[in-house]
Amino acid sequence: MRHYLDHAATTPLRPGARDAWLAASEIVGNASSTHGAGQAARRLLEDSRERAAAVVGCDPIEVVFTSGGTESINTALRGLWGARTAEAAAIVLPDAEHHATTDTVAALAREGAVVRPVPVDALGRIDTAMFAAALDGAAVATALVANNEVGTVNDARALSLSAAAAGVPLHLDAVSACGHVPLVFRDLRGDASAGTGLVAMSIAGHKIGAPVGTGMLVVSRSARIAPLLHGGSQQRGLRAGTQDVPGAAALAVALEEAEAERERESTRLAALRDRLIAGVLAAVPSAALLGDPLDRLPGNAHLLFPGAVGESLLFLLDMAGISASTGSACQAGVAEPSHVVLAMGRSEQDARSVLRLTLGATSTEADVDAVLVAIPDAVSRASR
Amino acid sequence: MRHYLDHAATTPLRPGARDAWLAASEIVGNASSTHGAGQAARRLLEDSRERAAAVVGCDPIEVVFTSGGTESINTALRGLWGARTAEAAAIVLPDAEHHATTDTVAALAREGAVVRPVPVDALGRIDTAMFAAALDGAAVATALVANNEVGTVNDARALSLSAAAAGVPLHLDAVSACGHVPLVFRDLRGDASAGTGLVAMSIAGHKIGAPVGTGMLVVSRSARIAPLLHGGSQQRGLRAGTQDVPGAAALAVALEEAEAERERESTRLAALRDRLIAGVLAAVPSAALLGDPLDRLPGNAHLLFPGAVGESLLFLLDMAGISASTGSACQAGVAEPSHVVLAMGRSEQDARSVLRLTLGATSTEADVDAVLVAIPDAVSRASR
Repeated sequence: MRHYLDHAATTPLRPGARDAWLAASEIVGNASSTHGAGQAARRLLEDSRERAAAVVGCDPIEVVFTSGGTESINTALRGLWGARTAEAAAIVLPDAEHHATTDTVAALAREGAVVRPVPVDALGRIDTAMFAAALDGAAVATALVANNEVGTVNDARALSLSAAAAGVPLHLDAVSACGHVPLVFRDLRGDASAGTGLVAMSIAGHKIGAPVGTGMLVVSRSARIAPLLHGGSQQRGLRAGTQDVPGAAALAVALEEAEAERERESTRLAALRDRLIAGVLAAVPSAALLGDPLDRLPGNAHLLFPGAVGESLLFLLDMAGISASTGSACQAGVAEPSHVVLAMGRSEQDARSVLRLTLGATSTEADVDAVLVAIPDAVSRASR
Repeated sequence: MRHYLDHAATTPLRPGARDAWLAASEIVGNASSTHGAGQAARRLLEDSRERAAAVVGCDPIEVVFTSGGTESINTALRGLWGARTAEAAAIVLPDAEHHATTDTVAALAREGAVVRPVPVDALGRIDTAMFAAALDGAAVATALVANNEVGTVNDARALSLSAAAAGVPLHLDAVSACGHVPLVFRDLRGDASAGTGLVAMSIAGHKIGAPVGTGMLVVSRSARIAPLLHGGSQQRGLRAGTQDVPGAAALAVALEEAEAERERESTRLAALRDRLIAGVLAAVPSAALLGDPLDRLPGNAHLLFPGAVGESLLFLLDMAGISASTGSACQAGVAEPSHVVLAMGRSEQDARSVLRLTLGATSTEADVDAVLVAIPDAVSRASR
């Protein structure tokens, strides 16, 4: 029996989302076509947009459906950068962001952006004071709501308020947080002035049980942002391309389901997670939990096994039927130590000795048991 | 009963593609994860890549899965532009390209690109001699294989050869052509030198019965191209983001099915189309067929009704249960005359008096009959 503990990499498609996708795929018609067939598709699209907006707490017109988290993040960062005022040249970038963010900012840096790094603390938390201090005159700021590797949940409200106070547009990467922590866009945005403060928030469908290839970018009405994809006036001109109605319908259902069960599931997953963490720490006394022990994604256990080789650990657990990861799947196979763990002040050796175990909707006690059975031997062998 | 004659805007999902999507969505695992679950997804992804490559005549590594035609075109044009040599500044742009192309080139022009327009003739065909003449020292060239509005099929081989001779990288927009005309990437590319001639070709899934939100960009091994989406090393580093395995599997099936039935379907659709055109021209003597009468997409009937208002015609046909369009769905609702028809030397009045009727896999004699019954009255009323 396989035990899947890599829900942060991707999580199973929800049956409700699958059914919504299938039903929508029966509608023949391009949602941009003016005839009846197109308008039937359009109605379902706009209904999906309204439902998605209701879940994340924004207006329907602020929902831009995309092909996923990476496109959302690229659109937000490049788009806000592209619409900056002439004198602004800096991008405020915390040290432990996802590669979709760091790589996009690196690309913008090659085009003239000046990167202002902001440290994270030993728990992987963005330093809110340093973040606020870095904002002055910046063109764009970005931050993870919750760290995708170590699971630390940042104070998104504080980051948003400081961006509003500084008059800087802020993008929040909510890909890992969505479905696990409360996310109400308009509350997080507060009463920020037009085009400043929280203006964009990225969400990926496949992290919450919608199909891979779906996602959304919340873009506030007042945001000054340039499109990434050109070619049509769809979605406020912000995202050209034939709109994926089945994808939008499935995403709306997944968002609704995830939000409806969030509190109950958070409690259940946190209990499983805590048993997992306690069990591992008991079985392997040298192990340590990384990330914030309290302000943490309910399904995330991120463990350091000093002296063990993370990739070997992965392999040995896989042999034992357990799917885990050392960090972001987007970087899997890349022989680099985790930049997140390094940013937390750990050594390169430590950054190569970590294991991320992540739980989700299909996780059970049996999954936890399987890890607790397999981990001592795996760590021992991975440490030779 | 509804009659759908807008297959160029989008065509129904193929049952085979739907089944492939569903089966693939049962696999839990990120194709970038190194564990067994991820590798199962990876195997299906690479199998799909091989099958897609076999259909379009390229190497599997040359297949970059995208979220659709618009992303493919944006990636190709911006990517080739971004990797240009310092002295090259021109983009060769025929006059009747899709808006995904013209809008992307317009964006690049704001960033310093010099646009070199190439005329199309009265049939909407790219002038191959003018195209060749425009290539000298250009950074990028682009061309439609078949025009999405008027259905004229260009001489892609000649365009490719001239780009190879000029040492200029060429992108072909095969979105409308795929599934309807022979497309063998390596034959079209010929023996062009590294990085020159045909180096990229865009395909959209939903035009051939794959799900909306799927597509691919063929990128030759030797192409010099920068990524549009940053954030991970997936797909040669050319397209970051979690790979959509169900989408890729569905696209591969749709490509295979479309290619397997292409000759038979082309014959069938061309016969339907010719009866449709002849019937309309007989019923409305003032009408004219636009586009090339011979080198034309088998499912495309593009008709000019002098003095009629295209939008009214659409509305009246829709009332009669017929879905049609005046041009690209991506521009539907935009109150602009077709730039394609204008480029063919027609008046603005004519460019507002056109109707595109497009056939596909589900089209029948009854669809043609319905148009022939409804069109005289609709044209008469739309001409008041």
